Amino acid sequence: ARALGELGGGTQASQRLLAYSDALLSIIATVMILPVAHTKIHPDQKLNESVQQLLATKIAVYLMTFLIVTVAWAAHVRLFQVIELIDDVLALLNLACMMLITFLPYTFSLMASFPDVPFGIFMFSSCAVIIGIVQAVIVMYGFHHPYLLNHQIQVSEDQAFYKYHILKIILRGPTLSFFAAIFSFFFVPMSYVFLGLITFFPHIHHLTKWFKSKAVGAEEEVPLESFTFYLNEPLSKERVEAFTDGVYAIVATLLILDICEDNVPDAKEVKEKYHGNLISALNEYGPNFLAYFGSFVTVGLLWFVHHSLFLHVTKTTRLMGLLNNLSLAFIGGLPLAYQLTSNFAKKSHNEIEAIQVSCVTIFFASIFQFGIWVAALFYERETLHPYARYGGKEHAFMFAKLALYPCVCLLAFFLTCVLSELSADIFHLMQIIVPFAFLVLRIFVRIALMTIKHVTSLSRRRD
Amino acid sequence: ARALGELGGGTQASQRLLAYSDALLSIIATVMILPVAHTKIHPDQKLNESVQQLLATKIAVYLMTFLIVTVAWAAHVRLFQVIELIDDVLALLNLACMMLITFLPYTFSLMASFPDVPFGIFMFSSCAVIIGIVQAVIVMYGFHHPYLLNHQIQVSEDQAFYKYHILKIILRGPTLSFFAAIFSFFFVPMSYVFLGLITFFPHIHHLTKWFKSKAVGAEEEVPLESFTFYLNEPLSKERVEAFTDGVYAIVATLLILDICEDNVPDAKEVKEKYHGNLISALNEYGPNFLAYFGSFVTVGLLWFVHHSLFLHVTKTTRLMGLLNNLSLAFIGGLPLAYQLTSNFAKKSHNEIEAIQVSCVTIFFASIFQFGIWVAALFYERETLHPYARYGGKEHAFMFAKLALYPCVCLLAFFLTCVLSELSADIFHLMQIIVPFAFLVLRIFVRIALMTIKHVTSLSRRRD
Repeated sequence: ARALGELGGGTQASQRLLAYSDALLSIIATVMILPVAHTKIHPDQKLNESVQQLLATKIAVYLMTFLIVTVAWAAHVRLFQVIELIDDVLALLNLACMMLITFLPYTFSLMASFPDVPFGIFMFSSCAVIIGIVQAVIVMYGFHHPYLLNHQIQVSEDQAFYKYHILKIILRGPTLSFFAAIFSFFFVPMSYVFLGLITFFPHIHHLTKWFKSKAVGAEEEVPLESFTFYLNEPLSKERVEAFTDGVYAIVATLLILDICEDNVPDAKEVKEKYHGNLISALNEYGPNFLAYFGSFVTVGLLWFVHHSLFLHVTKTTRLMGLLNNLSLAFIGGLPLAYQLTSNFAKKSHNEIEAIQVSCVTIFFASIFQFGIWVAALFYERETLHPYARYGGKEHAFMFAKLALYPCVCLLAFFLTCVLSELSADIFHLMQIIVPFAFLVLRIFVRIALMTIKHVTSLSRRRD
Repeated sequence: ARALGELGGGTQASQRLLAYSDALLSIIATVMILPVAHTKIHPDQKLNESVQQLLATKIAVYLMTFLIVTVAWAAHVRLFQVIELIDDVLALLNLACMMLITFLPYTFSLMASFPDVPFGIFMFSSCAVIIGIVQAVIVMYGFHHPYLLNHQIQVSEDQAFYKYHILKIILRGPTLSFFAAIFSFFFVPMSYVFLGLITFFPHIHHLTKWFKSKAVGAEEEVPLESFTFYLNEPLSKERVEAFTDGVYAIVATLLILDICEDNVPDAKEVKEKYHGNLISALNEYGPNFLAYFGSFVTVGLLWFVHHSLFLHVTKTTRLMGLLNNLSLAFIGGLPLAYQLTSNFAKKSHNEIEAIQVSCVTIFFASIFQFGIWVAALFYERETLHPYARYGGKEHAFMFAKLALYPCVCLLAFFLTCVLSELSADIFHLMQIIVPFAFLVLRIFVRIALMTIKHVTSLSRRRD
């Protein structure tokens, strides 16, 4: 980032604009879990059926919205890797773009509630088209004021080629959305096909290119490092962190919001039912408070693991970004899982299943984090700090940190299957133990490493 | 910030931990407006009375909670100005501290709902005591590992003095809270006095010192720049920005959440009432969508002004932080204002008053932003970039940017008083015009400056 002194009066560093956009996008992506989590389930109903009937569609909508917002986020990241500096006009255009993106979830819930009515899909596609046009205007404006661009493009002789290439990629989605909007009046399924293409077209395009290059044998030319569809293309690490922090922060606070709104007892009720004894009235909400602390601790510790990992990551690739977004989608599902665990009667069949759902959600969130680490290890020379590479002095400790949650979740899941009577106790015990496990993890790792060293040297001596 | 290479394996830069803490704190501070905004007001009721009876207490609770969270935030900023690097233990301790802080709003709403029952105030005070103890542990840990500390303290010979001084300031609030917790069992008003002291003690302390120094004439020694109560003490600019961005992002998205949850029509209702016509069903929600776009535009542009101002701010003082927090408290009130404007029948007495409330809220939010600018100009050599100082080439433009919203709001307010019939039209016209006004502001300022120059040169010539 260049200092303000070097820039003209109107030209500005873009960090804070991007941080604000990340905050907006992460909130929008995450809060779509709220309508799912607030679904009222009658305690007498069997969770098994209600999950299948009521929650399944809502969860599908949540996942789709989350992933669509992350696609929009990734496009935004790549756009502002090309345009590095901003001025007032770009800042205002970006805010307009954000406003349209924050409206997408609403059009999406219209689509989900009225699958037969073309209006929802028409609105969604139109929004996507307008967003694309605004982004194209941003690109045109950037190339009209080349001092705003990425240094690599700024010094290149072939700026017109870059401009054309970037506009082509930017406008591909909106063009497909335009067709989707038109077809929504004649034949809705075709619109869905077009919208589906937006997400998959880059990957199909990439695959066909790959097959072509294998068949013909000619190597494809990569025109611009930061604007391809390759999975090892870099993705701004700062922005991955900002987006992730936003999601974790919202998820960690979602439950306390519900508690603030729902769990303050009514003054009248306290007087009549509990004879003015507030503490016994609050006792009824006990499981909710426990769920809150449990959720905060889990989210906090998963953030802590992510933070530790990204301290040692030097470059983020698109594949790592994808795995991170998948992990975040499950993190976003935690409020639902905790809402479920606190909703049911103790030791009922429902409660055990709710606890198992929680374990599975945490497991997937943490295993995708582990996936980021594995993906980073594949290109460790480019993506990891020497300390964290294979053989580095923090390698084993990092491995242990990332493996702790998946292992504990698997263990808890199988224990609840075997000892279903004690499932709630097992789950709460797990939540209490894990923070302390992280505190003493370094010592454990040292002991384990020493033991391994000792065993291998012993076995060598025997040979 | 030092690079990772320089640090030991376990020692880490603290930026991301602090950014995450800022995100959590800004969410907690802002969302307390939700219970206020979701207060159901019957459309037939006169807003005037219901505002006075129902909303007043809730707004008071919101403002108190917001300000208490900002006090906690400021304490957190100052703590981590002393401790500059972190390790895993500090990260986990900080997360524990955050968990307790996110619980404060709940205890506060208990206090507000049951003013006569000592349990709420006891919970609140106990939380504050535990937070203080955790923070004291963080300080002790930091001084036990001096390489984590601020460089200035690290090289000083009198570390023990610093430790004592910082612990004294950190534990002052918790000690008062401890007394509040004890008195809550005997005499509740005394508890409120103790809690009130937490907020005002620093200022009283500062005032008495100031009077003493005036009376005796002796200059007080300032022991440590970053841990005093002086209003021109520096406050990390990065963290002020992060906290501000969080508040703006949440406020900008709060309305779309409500829209996603409340304004998706029921499939049955659409079939029966609107004969399956979704568009006419959505027509009823028109004012809500208008309110959403209006709110997003206003919040986005106020963020834009803040962003422009802080691009030229080089150092943030506590006074600027205080003004910023006051501005943010009004920003947080915007969802309520917009909820009100979209709730009432067109051209009713209620609607006009709701619009006037909106104007007043926006006015205060923007006038406090202007206040930050004025406060910065007082110490412009330290706090402002040369461009923005008096006589700098961006000075007039910055002035115009900051003055635009207060002026427009005042104008809109007085117009609604005179032309009450047209108040809704005036308000919507204002929301449409202002973004374009920002786009062409630079040209206007140039014309204005040229005119002023011309006039002054003409008047000189006449002399």
